[in-house]
Amino acid sequence: MTQAGCELCEQEGGIPVFRNDALRVIRAQDTDHPAFYRVIWNAHVAEWTGLPPPDRSASMQAVAKVETVLRQALQPTKVNLASLGNVVPHLHWHVIARFDWDARWPAPVWAPKNKEVADATSRLPMPLAELDQRVAQVLST
Amino acid sequence: MTQAGCELCEQEGGIPVFRNDALRVIRAQDTDHPAFYRVIWNAHVAEWTGLPPPDRSASMQAVAKVETVLRQALQPTKVNLASLGNVVPHLHWHVIARFDWDARWPAPVWAPKNKEVADATSRLPMPLAELDQRVAQVLST
Repeated sequence: MTQAGCELCEQEGGIPVFRNDALRVIRAQDTDHPAFYRVIWNAHVAEWTGLPPPDRSASMQAVAKVETVLRQALQPTKVNLASLGNVVPHLHWHVIARFDWDARWPAPVWAPKNKEVADATSRLPMPLAELDQRVAQVLST
Repeated sequence: MTQAGCELCEQEGGIPVFRNDALRVIRAQDTDHPAFYRVIWNAHVAEWTGLPPPDRSASMQAVAKVETVLRQALQPTKVNLASLGNVVPHLHWHVIARFDWDARWPAPVWAPKNKEVADATSRLPMPLAELDQRVAQVLST
């Protein structure tokens, strides 16, 4: 179930954090929003309801685990969740820790930047490598 | 479980389409993106994982039903799902039918408009009142 020319069928899609048979978690490399993960369904499907209900649940359980780690580790102002896929119609859930100091707060990350924040990664309470490990660990359980 | 000053504790949040004890579905009045619904949890909770797992599932089952109706009734180019809540931190899921002719396609609805589309509602294959009825009917089952 891969589609020729689909970026998420052919590439990992970011820094690999976790993978099982059904899905993977990657970290996006977004300097403005450094604690930005994606839960990507491995098989090619465009819409979330294109999955049978048990797989919908499995994808959301992974989203919940990533969100839970972000909340516990970073105490963000808010977590943003989204499945858009207009440009890459291969199911992926964005899971993004948002902070009131970040470059687009309170707008969504897809809105224009409203300020410059040069050191977003260093403002997080832990290094990204450690955060990745915590995400991987919780996904493995 | 209401919070003083919270817009979604104090107001319906849009055109009422469906309500049960746990959640409601409203239609947002967005002339650029007319097939735009929100699944709003009735009790005040900021994050999706702030709900116990059965309630997370219940909220997603409602999201799935709305998405399914939009796909069947409108055959949109893509459905966009999102739980952001940066401005109104009361759990609500956006469920939005997107079309390649719409004013922000392929960008998210929160990005700047890239063209003017004067008659978005009339381009839908059915009147919004009928779409609302279908959403309400499926949510009631």
